[in-house]
Amino acid sequence: MLQKTVILVLASLLSLVATAQKEDSIAFKKIADNILIHGTAYENLRHICKKIGPRLSGSAQAQKAVEATAKMLRDAGADTVYLQPCMVPHWVRGVKEVGYITLPNGTKYPLNLCSLGNSEGTGLKGINASIVQVNNFEQLNQLGKKGIKGKIVFFNFEMNPTYIATFNAYGESGRSRTAGPSLAASYGAVGVMVRSLASNFDDYPHTGVTIYNDSFPKIPAVAISTNNAIWLTKQLAKNQTLTAYFKNTCTMLPDAPSFNVVGEIRGSILPKEIITVGGHLDSWDLAEGAQDDGAGCVQSIEVIRVFKATGIRPKRTVRAVMFMNEENGGRGGDKYLELALLNKENHFFALESDAGGFTPRGFSLEMKEEQINKIKEWKNLFYPYGVYDFSAAGSGADIGPLKVTGAALAGLRPDSQRYFDVHHASTDIFENVSRRELHMGALNMAGLIYLVDKYGL
Amino acid sequence: MLQKTVILVLASLLSLVATAQKEDSIAFKKIADNILIHGTAYENLRHICKKIGPRLSGSAQAQKAVEATAKMLRDAGADTVYLQPCMVPHWVRGVKEVGYITLPNGTKYPLNLCSLGNSEGTGLKGINASIVQVNNFEQLNQLGKKGIKGKIVFFNFEMNPTYIATFNAYGESGRSRTAGPSLAASYGAVGVMVRSLASNFDDYPHTGVTIYNDSFPKIPAVAISTNNAIWLTKQLAKNQTLTAYFKNTCTMLPDAPSFNVVGEIRGSILPKEIITVGGHLDSWDLAEGAQDDGAGCVQSIEVIRVFKATGIRPKRTVRAVMFMNEENGGRGGDKYLELALLNKENHFFALESDAGGFTPRGFSLEMKEEQINKIKEWKNLFYPYGVYDFSAAGSGADIGPLKVTGAALAGLRPDSQRYFDVHHASTDIFENVSRRELHMGALNMAGLIYLVDKYGL
Repeated sequence: MLQKTVILVLASLLSLVATAQKEDSIAFKKIADNILIHGTAYENLRHICKKIGPRLSGSAQAQKAVEATAKMLRDAGADTVYLQPCMVPHWVRGVKEVGYITLPNGTKYPLNLCSLGNSEGTGLKGINASIVQVNNFEQLNQLGKKGIKGKIVFFNFEMNPTYIATFNAYGESGRSRTAGPSLAASYGAVGVMVRSLASNFDDYPHTGVTIYNDSFPKIPAVAISTNNAIWLTKQLAKNQTLTAYFKNTCTMLPDAPSFNVVGEIRGSILPKEIITVGGHLDSWDLAEGAQDDGAGCVQSIEVIRVFKATGIRPKRTVRAVMFMNEENGGRGGDKYLELALLNKENHFFALESDAGGFTPRGFSLEMKEEQINKIKEWKNLFYPYGVYDFSAAGSGADIGPLKVTGAALAGLRPDSQRYFDVHHASTDIFENVSRRELHMGALNMAGLIYLVDKYGL
Repeated sequence: MLQKTVILVLASLLSLVATAQKEDSIAFKKIADNILIHGTAYENLRHICKKIGPRLSGSAQAQKAVEATAKMLRDAGADTVYLQPCMVPHWVRGVKEVGYITLPNGTKYPLNLCSLGNSEGTGLKGINASIVQVNNFEQLNQLGKKGIKGKIVFFNFEMNPTYIATFNAYGESGRSRTAGPSLAASYGAVGVMVRSLASNFDDYPHTGVTIYNDSFPKIPAVAISTNNAIWLTKQLAKNQTLTAYFKNTCTMLPDAPSFNVVGEIRGSILPKEIITVGGHLDSWDLAEGAQDDGAGCVQSIEVIRVFKATGIRPKRTVRAVMFMNEENGGRGGDKYLELALLNKENHFFALESDAGGFTPRGFSLEMKEEQINKIKEWKNLFYPYGVYDFSAAGSGADIGPLKVTGAALAGLRPDSQRYFDVHHASTDIFENVSRRELHMGALNMAGLIYLVDKYGL
């Protein structure tokens, strides 16, 4: 008798689970179909890229993007749209950079280069010095003051092509750009050239932030294209003493006022529990910031739109946030946390899309193990939409600060093979985004938020 | 005692399995690293696209491509390189097509259009007739002779955007292009316009083969761009009677001589068992045929190169085949089977890449269930390289005929979101292929062939 009861209970439990899975699968398909047919993320991205364009923190275009995305959030049906004021670094590139290598025969070989973000400039005279190549920090340290003083250091940190996750190669070689200039300055270098952090070979230099260490002089730093870096390496193998010249007039101005842009659907049952979905609104000044990170912004707006359009009423408050200043300061993310603490907000879950609008493959999960396991139970719902990889890893730079609140964090993980072809370069334009790929990302983000809201974590 | 023996045997078996898996993982990484660092597939593709270009069966460029890929196979280190003669259809497009819609106010609205492959032409006078739209074959059948006779039929079969696997949408809507013209002719239509089989909205018409049914007149057929199709649908909703004009001078010439290109590594132990890896060398005349299917050709050559470069000596003969005439006849695939039967070849396994050089996600497996299960046991070896989806499904058009030999067949399944943006259109160019994505496909193909050769099926 007991056995029979146990079997009956088990059977009804299993049937409940099956019914719930079927319901969820139907809801997921409703979200997916709506976005694939009616999605506006792609057209919103076109507007941000083509009508506004580059939008570095503190620029007039960044302000335009604030206004445009606030309107997009209202059009998407957000219950409330508001701005969070924050001060941001205001770096300007100045005149177009020029630079060249002087070959032993006197020929000047021009370089495709651009200043690193937040770099100091050389002034109009530029700097001219002999150039010394290092392929890693150990080589720099070995050369020491004797080998570095008065020179321009060429950091040739190639992105390791054998890493399948290109972000790992970026993380490893990226130290040349972030820490390289101050490390070179600590040995008396007068300037720095870094090989662009790119996984393809072309003529476009890739910018990106450098982080000065206040203990050392702030020496000017530029990136050269991967083709230039390959060429220069060959030249230096033949002629150990070459001189390099470059001129840039970039400079850091006083902090400027700017905003995060927020659009909310108020929770129907637990309005004080907040689910954040976001990307960053600022981009480098060289690019349209299509993949980095216009994509993440319009995908986040799309989550609001599809919930409204399909009649999903989340229990919790769902908040799409366009963070300002991810690229060269992270002030938007910091401000978001500051206000969360000040207003004693209850942050339940946050999801960031800042790895491009490519076909999604998974989510990185920065949360407790039992929460990760709970999300993994939903795997079958994502599989038909190309998402299969749920791994414990970092989430996103803008939502990262929220970790102290105890919120569970996640990041969309799209296919990463093409990202560093265009990242921070003038090739990061709307034309290099696929409508279907972008919308596939948005629908999986909406699906995850739907499930997290419905079942909790 | 028995228990102990069983445990010991089990333990040593498990340890053997673990050792084998580790060895395979090391071999796989050796293949992957070599391709990611030294791979030549991308530069070979550049040559095929930029130095040769479009290579429709029977064209001078197709012949150039035969010679160029034979050289690439020799450079890759193939033990033997040879050609398989075959006769191919020789269709020519003629003068650039023109066409327009005449609006009620007399305005002529020009269309972006191209002839369907193998279509008959209108001659220099062109055809002018009232146009009738159908969105599926049921509508066509309902209209019947009364509604169709003397008219141009506009097949507006949109690719279903809600299908995640875009090939499924292509398969469904593609019937408008393959079967539509003869079906319309059976009701007395004088010409056909099909909506381009594309998953994006732009101004480029997509060609592709139409298949005439000999029972009906061969009426001229063209594709119009998706933007044109959307516009025309709106116009026809307003004005049920519009006339269309188009002119094309395409025609089918007598069959021409051509070749499959074959390069082999002779098997070290079982040379008579043949593993084929291939793509098709011909492309439509409008495009460079970069994704379709230059990619599959250079990936197949890469398998030969990486085996030679890393010292892998396959037990079985591994044969890379550039099939001719997949696009408008399939004669190369038929010839390959014919020769296999004639020479009593023992075909063990064949793998085709003809779904683009995008990031791979899986393999479709057309073989016995126990063979599929065996391949699935290797899943963990592929997972680090982004391949996780092993499904029973069709393999490829060129290797398909081999099925009668009992060979196990497979197809590379890359991400399909962008494929139909460029498929059969002038946008299918080298610039739309990513080096890393292409090489990721090649390394997974080489890995699968390595395992199939080592362990059998």
